[in-house]
Amino acid sequence: MAEVKNKQVVLKDYATGFPKESDMDIVEGTISLNLPEGSNEVLLKNLYLSCDPYMQMLMSKIEGLEGFGTYSPGSPLTGYGVAKVLESGHPDYKKGDLVWGFTKWEEHSLVPSSQILFKIEHTDVPLSYYIGILGIPGMTAYAGFFEVGLPKKGDRVFVSAASGAVGQLVGQFAKFTGCYVVGSAGSKDKNKLGFDDAFNYKEEPDLNAALKRYFPEGIDIYFENVGGKTLDAVLLNMRVHGRIVVCGMVSQYNLAQPDGVTNLANLIFKRIRIQGFGVADYYQLYPKFLEYVVPKIKEGKIVYVEDIVEGLEKAPPALIGLFSGRNVGKQVIVLARE
Amino acid sequence: MAEVKNKQVVLKDYATGFPKESDMDIVEGTISLNLPEGSNEVLLKNLYLSCDPYMQMLMSKIEGLEGFGTYSPGSPLTGYGVAKVLESGHPDYKKGDLVWGFTKWEEHSLVPSSQILFKIEHTDVPLSYYIGILGIPGMTAYAGFFEVGLPKKGDRVFVSAASGAVGQLVGQFAKFTGCYVVGSAGSKDKNKLGFDDAFNYKEEPDLNAALKRYFPEGIDIYFENVGGKTLDAVLLNMRVHGRIVVCGMVSQYNLAQPDGVTNLANLIFKRIRIQGFGVADYYQLYPKFLEYVVPKIKEGKIVYVEDIVEGLEKAPPALIGLFSGRNVGKQVIVLARE
Repeated sequence: MAEVKNKQVVLKDYATGFPKESDMDIVEGTISLNLPEGSNEVLLKNLYLSCDPYMQMLMSKIEGLEGFGTYSPGSPLTGYGVAKVLESGHPDYKKGDLVWGFTKWEEHSLVPSSQILFKIEHTDVPLSYYIGILGIPGMTAYAGFFEVGLPKKGDRVFVSAASGAVGQLVGQFAKFTGCYVVGSAGSKDKNKLGFDDAFNYKEEPDLNAALKRYFPEGIDIYFENVGGKTLDAVLLNMRVHGRIVVCGMVSQYNLAQPDGVTNLANLIFKRIRIQGFGVADYYQLYPKFLEYVVPKIKEGKIVYVEDIVEGLEKAPPALIGLFSGRNVGKQVIVLARE
Repeated sequence: MAEVKNKQVVLKDYATGFPKESDMDIVEGTISLNLPEGSNEVLLKNLYLSCDPYMQMLMSKIEGLEGFGTYSPGSPLTGYGVAKVLESGHPDYKKGDLVWGFTKWEEHSLVPSSQILFKIEHTDVPLSYYIGILGIPGMTAYAGFFEVGLPKKGDRVFVSAASGAVGQLVGQFAKFTGCYVVGSAGSKDKNKLGFDDAFNYKEEPDLNAALKRYFPEGIDIYFENVGGKTLDAVLLNMRVHGRIVVCGMVSQYNLAQPDGVTNLANLIFKRIRIQGFGVADYYQLYPKFLEYVVPKIKEGKIVYVEDIVEGLEKAPPALIGLFSGRNVGKQVIVLARE
């Protein structure tokens, strides 16, 4: 059997507080490039790995998160990726197929037959798009904004983490819908996504005042990616019948004591709906989503920004960088281009 | 013109912190019992006044509440009441009519013609029911539980302030729907409403542990009347796709620094919806509500508990008592019975 070296990013131990690069290790194992006789598994060469804020949660032990696929110390991190099939014992996949789906942070992965991989049919867009605008983040933005947010033309929309994989798309979907959109992000040069306006939250000591400046008449839809103090300030600025679409609370997951949100009585004063959602509840909309988004990509109507790093060694700092707003655009890790 | 004495409960000045009895004064004004020539106003003799938790908010200056009819220092408190028409210049009402609607905390009230009063047709139930089970609290319980909570048979339902005007009805509506219901309230003898179980939150130093005891499989619907620490503990115990119906947050309105709610990340983990609502958005359902509830009252299927005090002098302590859970059942103030 041909064995090759297989570099992996493994979790050293559960993170306490905010995850650090040192909570991960790069280790070098080996993997066989031949499937055993009769196996129905799929052997993948990972090309692009996705780097997403939710992964931070899975590095820690958090009450309420039991059974959500928390990472195991000593094992590689998992996430979405684009890969090429090297060998397949599964009738649905054959050698050479390009696929996207759930994989591991390693160079090669052996995927059990029970796990769904999506075949990539259209290769006239960058392959990395399948872990972004054409994958889970795109579908998350679409389901969250349209199905949970229920936008109407003219709505005033605020998006936090506005330059992230999801946030940048939400803002553009809102513009297509005829909304006024302002985004907040962690750096200055994140203002090129066609939003009406954007600000760097790090330069706004008083978020309530900033929101009052950008939304003098209040906010109809808040697309929530960060939680904590931002949510608290937003609650003071929501309009009657406003909707808060909770996609993530990346500022909060790993705090020993999360920020206390104190303005929830506004839910009553303004009859506000806050709704957490998970994209898995909306997978049936994937074809409808592709119909919506693919023409816009081909016609150049969507700006989609990627922040690309090369090599598995860059994966841990890229993941940690997400939480300080270091990335500009969807964070992608390239292991190989084919 | 016949002038009579007219006792009133007036706000002395805006409450700071939790309202106290001393924030209100009993004053004695006068009122004319004859309408001026050509007036289209309605002169009411107030019979029953409603005493509701939301009134506490209106005694204070709270950010976000501007324009919600906050009380004015020197003026009588306002609220819902049952009254008899003494004189009417309005074509829809005549002397002797029994009505319910928005009135003032005083013996007699002059109501402008623009203000809607509801005529009481059925007098084979206690008149006080029109400020309770057949009025705003009943309609609030109905709209909140059914329209916002979207209950299904078998759902696990938790109700706070379970012996209040709204809470006691929500629990019973839930039982009619085939749900498992547990209520929390501020005293022990509040366990006679047909709920599956109830507890005194004052005897539970660890609310999270209490909820885990009563809901080992978690909560599908939380009917929120109190906010703060209770909400925080509930968030840890919600089930996937749970709904939190926010009717009130009576523990929070008048805190200089409201309790910080720290477990909101569970909104994502469990895809939870929290929704604030106001009964005014559901008034069109009032006939449907009466169809649902009146037969149940006549057949004795609903337990409806009132806590009745006599005389306007008892109104301030009754209002303040709501916030320490002193009342058992809907708090009613009787000024006169006819």
